[in-house]
Amino acid sequence: MSGIIIDFERKQRCGIEEAILCERKSVTQIEEIIELGLERQARLLFTRFNKEKWSQLDPVYHQQLAYCPLSSTAILGELDKLEDQQPHIAIVSGGSSDTGVCHEILTTLNYHGYAARLFEDVGVSALWRLHDALDEINKAKVIIAVAGMEAALPTVLSGMTNRPIIAVPTSVGYGVSEGGQLALNACLGSCAAGLMTVNIDNGFGAACGAIKMINSFSM
Amino acid sequence: MSGIIIDFERKQRCGIEEAILCERKSVTQIEEIIELGLERQARLLFTRFNKEKWSQLDPVYHQQLAYCPLSSTAILGELDKLEDQQPHIAIVSGGSSDTGVCHEILTTLNYHGYAARLFEDVGVSALWRLHDALDEINKAKVIIAVAGMEAALPTVLSGMTNRPIIAVPTSVGYGVSEGGQLALNACLGSCAAGLMTVNIDNGFGAACGAIKMINSFSM
Amino acid sequence: MSGIIIDFERKQRCGIEEAILCERKSVTQIEEIIELGLERQARLLFTRFNKEKWSQLDPVYHQQLAYCPLSSTAILGELDKLEDQQPHIAIVSGGSSDTGVCHEILTTLNYHGYAARLFEDVGVSALWRLHDALDEINKAKVIIAVAGMEAALPTVLSGMTNRPIIAVPTSVGYGVSEGGQLALNACLGSCAAGLMTVNIDNGFGAACGAIKMINSFSM
Amino acid sequence: MSGIIIDFERKQRCGIEEAILCERKSVTQIEEIIELGLERQARLLFTRFNKEKWSQLDPVYHQQLAYCPLSSTAILGELDKLEDQQPHIAIVSGGSSDTGVCHEILTTLNYHGYAARLFEDVGVSALWRLHDALDEINKAKVIIAVAGMEAALPTVLSGMTNRPIIAVPTSVGYGVSEGGQLALNACLGSCAAGLMTVNIDNGFGAACGAIKMINSFSM
Amino acid sequence: MSGIIIDFERKQRCGIEEAILCERKSVTQIEEIIELGLERQARLLFTRFNKEKWSQLDPVYHQQLAYCPLSSTAILGELDKLEDQQPHIAIVSGGSSDTGVCHEILTTLNYHGYAARLFEDVGVSALWRLHDALDEINKAKVIIAVAGMEAALPTVLSGMTNRPIIAVPTSVGYGVSEGGQLALNACLGSCAAGLMTVNIDNGFGAACGAIKMINSFSM
Amino acid sequence: MSGIIIDFERKQRCGIEEAILCERKSVTQIEEIIELGLERQARLLFTRFNKEKWSQLDPVYHQQLAYCPLSSTAILGELDKLEDQQPHIAIVSGGSSDTGVCHEILTTLNYHGYAARLFEDVGVSALWRLHDALDEINKAKVIIAVAGMEAALPTVLSGMTNRPIIAVPTSVGYGVSEGGQLALNACLGSCAAGLMTVNIDNGFGAACGAIKMINSFSM
Amino acid sequence: MSGIIIDFERKQRCGIEEAILCERKSVTQIEEIIELGLERQARLLFTRFNKEKWSQLDPVYHQQLAYCPLSSTAILGELDKLEDQQPHIAIVSGGSSDTGVCHEILTTLNYHGYAARLFEDVGVSALWRLHDALDEINKAKVIIAVAGMEAALPTVLSGMTNRPIIAVPTSVGYGVSEGGQLALNACLGSCAAGLMTVNIDNGFGAACGAIKMINSFSM
Amino acid sequence: MSGIIIDFERKQRCGIEEAILCERKSVTQIEEIIELGLERQARLLFTRFNKEKWSQLDPVYHQQLAYCPLSSTAILGELDKLEDQQPHIAIVSGGSSDTGVCHEILTTLNYHGYAARLFEDVGVSALWRLHDALDEINKAKVIIAVAGMEAALPTVLSGMTNRPIIAVPTSVGYGVSEGGQLALNACLGSCAAGLMTVNIDNGFGAACGAIKMINSFSM
Repeated sequence: MSGIIIDFERKQRCGIEEAILCERKSVTQIEEIIELGLERQARLLFTRFNKEKWSQLDPVYHQQLAYCPLSSTAILGELDKLEDQQPHIAIVSGGSSDTGVCHEILTTLNYHGYAARLFEDVGVSALWRLHDALDEINKAKVIIAVAGMEAALPTVLSGMTNRPIIAVPTSVGYGVSEGGQLALNACLGSCAAGLMTVNIDNGFGAACGAIKMINSFSM
Repeated sequence: MSGIIIDFERKQRCGIEEAILCERKSVTQIEEIIELGLERQARLLFTRFNKEKWSQLDPVYHQQLAYCPLSSTAILGELDKLEDQQPHIAIVSGGSSDTGVCHEILTTLNYHGYAARLFEDVGVSALWRLHDALDEINKAKVIIAVAGMEAALPTVLSGMTNRPIIAVPTSVGYGVSEGGQLALNACLGSCAAGLMTVNIDNGFGAACGAIKMINSFSM
Repeated sequence: MSGIIIDFERKQRCGIEEAILCERKSVTQIEEIIELGLERQARLLFTRFNKEKWSQLDPVYHQQLAYCPLSSTAILGELDKLEDQQPHIAIVSGGSSDTGVCHEILTTLNYHGYAARLFEDVGVSALWRLHDALDEINKAKVIIAVAGMEAALPTVLSGMTNRPIIAVPTSVGYGVSEGGQLALNACLGSCAAGLMTVNIDNGFGAACGAIKMINSFSM
Repeated sequence: MSGIIIDFERKQRCGIEEAILCERKSVTQIEEIIELGLERQARLLFTRFNKEKWSQLDPVYHQQLAYCPLSSTAILGELDKLEDQQPHIAIVSGGSSDTGVCHEILTTLNYHGYAARLFEDVGVSALWRLHDALDEINKAKVIIAVAGMEAALPTVLSGMTNRPIIAVPTSVGYGVSEGGQLALNACLGSCAAGLMTVNIDNGFGAACGAIKMINSFSM
Repeated sequence: MSGIIIDFERKQRCGIEEAILCERKSVTQIEEIIELGLERQARLLFTRFNKEKWSQLDPVYHQQLAYCPLSSTAILGELDKLEDQQPHIAIVSGGSSDTGVCHEILTTLNYHGYAARLFEDVGVSALWRLHDALDEINKAKVIIAVAGMEAALPTVLSGMTNRPIIAVPTSVGYGVSEGGQLALNACLGSCAAGLMTVNIDNGFGAACGAIKMINSFSM
Repeated sequence: MSGIIIDFERKQRCGIEEAILCERKSVTQIEEIIELGLERQARLLFTRFNKEKWSQLDPVYHQQLAYCPLSSTAILGELDKLEDQQPHIAIVSGGSSDTGVCHEILTTLNYHGYAARLFEDVGVSALWRLHDALDEINKAKVIIAVAGMEAALPTVLSGMTNRPIIAVPTSVGYGVSEGGQLALNACLGSCAAGLMTVNIDNGFGAACGAIKMINSFSM
Repeated sequence: MSGIIIDFERKQRCGIEEAILCERKSVTQIEEIIELGLERQARLLFTRFNKEKWSQLDPVYHQQLAYCPLSSTAILGELDKLEDQQPHIAIVSGGSSDTGVCHEILTTLNYHGYAARLFEDVGVSALWRLHDALDEINKAKVIIAVAGMEAALPTVLSGMTNRPIIAVPTSVGYGVSEGGQLALNACLGSCAAGLMTVNIDNGFGAACGAIKMINSFSM
Repeated sequence: MSGIIIDFERKQRCGIEEAILCERKSVTQIEEIIELGLERQARLLFTRFNKEKWSQLDPVYHQQLAYCPLSSTAILGELDKLEDQQPHIAIVSGGSSDTGVCHEILTTLNYHGYAARLFEDVGVSALWRLHDALDEINKAKVIIAVAGMEAALPTVLSGMTNRPIIAVPTSVGYGVSEGGQLALNACLGSCAAGLMTVNIDNGFGAACGAIKMINSFSM
């Protein structure tokens, strides 16, 4: 046990539970954190937990966590019952390469007890796809728009709806769009008023933003 | 009249009225837009309208617009009556150099009929100022956090509240923080879950994001 | 006369006449070049010729050149007769702040004998404006799309037309879009297949590209 | 089948068929897309399909697609009959390291029914190679110039021909030219008037631009 | 022996012994340096010595060096006796992903004969952890603050203590914080007066800075 | 009085008094802060207070502050008596263009009661100047090394002394060294162990770092 | 006299006299340096001495220095007699906007006693101009090639001559070539073997490099 | 044989033979080039030819080329007899991690018939090493200075010698110096007059520059 301190009271304080970002943690550190969770009988969400690291984990933990390779997440403990009949949140994405980020959003929402509807592959190069889905999208109270490359989707969508939009730029692309900085800047520098943006590929953060909105307005 | 098209139906479609970004428009173009507004008896909000440009305007328009030099905004037409008794929105800023951006937020909110409370100069280098204001800040449903330089304020605040936070990085600083890119990245790359960010100095956008949230949840 | 060599045979060789980029030239150098042109009875196009420099020119030249402050261009000699009944080229722009670049394109085309139609202020934040103009735009054989900020216009337009599109990113914007690099990258990194891009604010270059296309296919 | 929507009508709308960018797609997603194509008896072009991914594909698909390792492309369905006797398009490259990009261009053109002639390894460090090929290059109506490192080829070529040139910067180089940003900027910032540029290594896009030109002028 | 010159007198001149940065050295070079050290019966510290390189070393050296995989360091020769009862140096870190850098600091200090106390995982998203540790931290004469992502820890800590702080930004993070440049700039551009910063992940340098302070003031 | 909060207890808490960074403050704001200081009979240090702003100040304040144009600082209230006979701090600079930064350091130290010795124009292009001054420099306990352009001075000096060095990169230079980023990175990326660096042109911060060291070791 | 140290022995040590870079020096400092020179009866070269600063100088110095506004240089003392009949150095530039840099090179060479021949406005967009001048250029032993924008000139020239070439990138250009970074990288990343490059607009440095070559090979 | 054109006359034209940059060439392409060389009985130099690629080559070629893993070069054909008794060229490097670049220089020089002396590991953190070697270094007519990280060596050396110096920045370093951009800029932005710089890690180019100098002055 080397000095790791889990913030088990975060939900109470901030409305969101602490999640464990696995990207730069060693397998040993992850195992220590699982042990801390088991000890406390706490629920824990692990993000950016790639398949290679998962497979290196002591197999004893493979039964105790629910792993989802599509979103690179794992969950210790039970999921809450999903509350929404008509989900408050719509996840809209530009292309099928964004699917990993979309599912990180979905998992994070579900982990906190929220349902969501997913509208994938409705990018602006073929606007009819977006027009077809618009009525359904507008039934949500918050929209999370996921897009890579030149990320025009959040901008265009913003001109079609009065719902608040959280934009998630993704690292999909090559050359000038490699790494997602272009997508990020396209969301931030958009002519559409009121777009709110999170870090590149930060599906977890976008989900948390949406949860905080819903919580704040239902208090 | 050279091809300018004002989107007078934007509020109906997106919940936000079109604002006129004056930064790269000539005085002639701004005058044409005022004429279009007067003709339609429409209200119009002009942003990034610096004093120099304002003084170059045909004086006939000086009576018709309400100009605010602190926020570099001007308004054509009447303000709506402010709705909130207890304002839904808190504007929190790190230092007194951020005051221009804070007032662009305030003007934009007021223009759309929303009141807000302003908590200035409560940056993290002296945490007691933030602690002192926290209870009042938490009475709002949405927080807009404004900060330049290393912009630690939105991150620290996020650990103290469960309200959704829109971060507005400002271009205050020099050397590595010159121009606001550091403040922007500090908001986007924050360890605090759920922070939502807008472009550097984009007070208008942050206000619009907050308005869309409130509108969406009161529908 | 300090070593300036004008390439008077460029049109013959490349189909485009040499233009004089005034941005970094001294007034003395510009006057020398005018003299060279007068001597040869040659036509000359001067670009990025701002009002300040123009006013510093020896007044004797003010009568000999046709100056356009909107596009910051000046022309020595006569314009060719415009050839097109139905212009082959459509210029489409996102916002009224792009008007200087649009007119540099128009002047360059006119100087070489080509007409064009201008569709300004049809950006994607209000798609109905673009939809309304689409039929007229499609009558051209080449489209030049001009846009600043997040520059989603060329991408969206590309999904609606089968005409070749030359994208001109502009330096309109602030924060992350300041200087036009975001607009440039958004055009280059677009998911729309076949977009061709020129340098930021390079209206002259886009016009030349369109002229070369028309020339090549009519040979 | 997870939400993937193929835009089978793109050719009708934009003159170009949708291509599948494989770079960030999983093998599972690619297989789903092949299935969608087979179902519809549609033709499909897959780009940036590297050998490793190709080898991981279910072998049943290896017979149904024509894979080209040099250009990292695969084609489902038959190639159109090539139309041109004297090809309208010349592909000119600076060095033999650019050959992958050249063949992505060639494959894309062939897939849409266009022939092209390839002039490789004629960079500016030995201008005699370019001079020797110039007459043949000029027989095309459109030139696609491919170059990495300092990418002087498109600029120099532009001074020698009146044909429109689409420049494709490549990621060939190291140090300051690593990744292709230098080559890209050298094309965009060129003193040669009318150069049109696409993203780094974007052979597919350059081919589409050329096709749109030819289509537009033959309509 | 290929021209390697070890600066065995550095400690005398600068107060710090030369350390061998292994990152770009070949295994052969490292072995030559070990031989030089053995010959001189000198002590040597090897940094950024990853496990892969360590395992490729001739096994004969595995007994002669003390290797620490957590900090990627190896030591030839004996450690000095640690001098401090109450250590002069506190190492404070934001998250458990920074643990490798923390231990490079600790090893470097110990190698030079200094003890230190380690306070890990006390980042600003849960300020109570930092408040709890503050009294103990303040017992040191110098604080080394280690943080990645938006690196708000050194700024916040600086407002709570009058001890000099050396900030070590780490490369922990993704998107805008990838590679540590954001953390670095957040330390440099901090509103907190007197923060001193070292290169990204440069635990060795921070330890040396602290040692030089202590040495200088005890002379 | 618009919401400005001065942290008059900072010295007690952090050992350093709050300084007023004037760069982005309006003249009105500066006047309000002077009034707050006068009211409290507090001392205040104003930095980055350029001549233009100073001259715009209400002349009534010109007598109440001591203004230094060389360092762009002003002081309200009395200077402490300087404590050191043999100053603990040496300020060493590369060239005479760095003199403004050197004097900001000196003023900040004097304001807090510390003397310092200044060694200007001893850059590495003529090492004899540095060698000549070395014995005197080494009498200090802390060295602040100020350098622009390629900033080799702190690195070279670090190999000659065992004193702790705080490096202040300056914005002196053009082309690749314009703005000071090169000087900053040269200090951070130095091969010299233990260099500690502050923001570009941040003389105030370097002085505070030195003061905190001295305070901490004399407690 | 504030601590300025002139390195009057530099020529003896390095073969080049110290030059005074005026860009960031105050008029007062420049006057002090002139006084130091007058006292020592030394010759001095002042570079980047713009017209505004020159006009602010105490008029008494206007007679004592020879000022050249084209190159922004001033010389105190007599020029050496130029040695070369057939100059060893050719200065070749791409466009007439580079003329200021060309004349800084010429002045620096002349100041040190070397003649040079100037070939201006022979950029690659019209190769016939370069071909026409090639025989004369090749008579020099060293070529200094000056170019802005995409800076293809040094690369192309390098393929035509066996003389050593020093490339001077200039800050001529806009958009992606603004500031000269593109020109710089184009020289550094060139496919032409053996190009040697100096900082953007650094005519002084290129001249010094050429002088050092000539000196070294005539010793 | 796919369109590869070797410039066998380059030496005659430019004084340097064409070298084959292997970094982005496939093994098949390299084999084709070897075949072209064998056919013509030409000598060829291959650079950036890493061990992995070398081992994938058809073994039949392993006997026909002389491979050097330290410099990642291979030579087809015989080396010229080295001409110099007292070599005209000195190679000076900062640290032992630069050894690969130093040997690429040495191999390129030897391939063209020139000897050189190598002075490794004489960086500025221990100036005595450089002072000790200075007399020997000064016997050369040209110095090639190789350095990574903050690359102060060429600057410091330039103040000690009157020989022309070609600086080769290397990619040695981490954090802010990762990739060599800092080292490159430190050479370009140096206060030392007359430094000439090549691309990061471009040992081949530096050697070619030195050869061109020697050739030009011995003609």
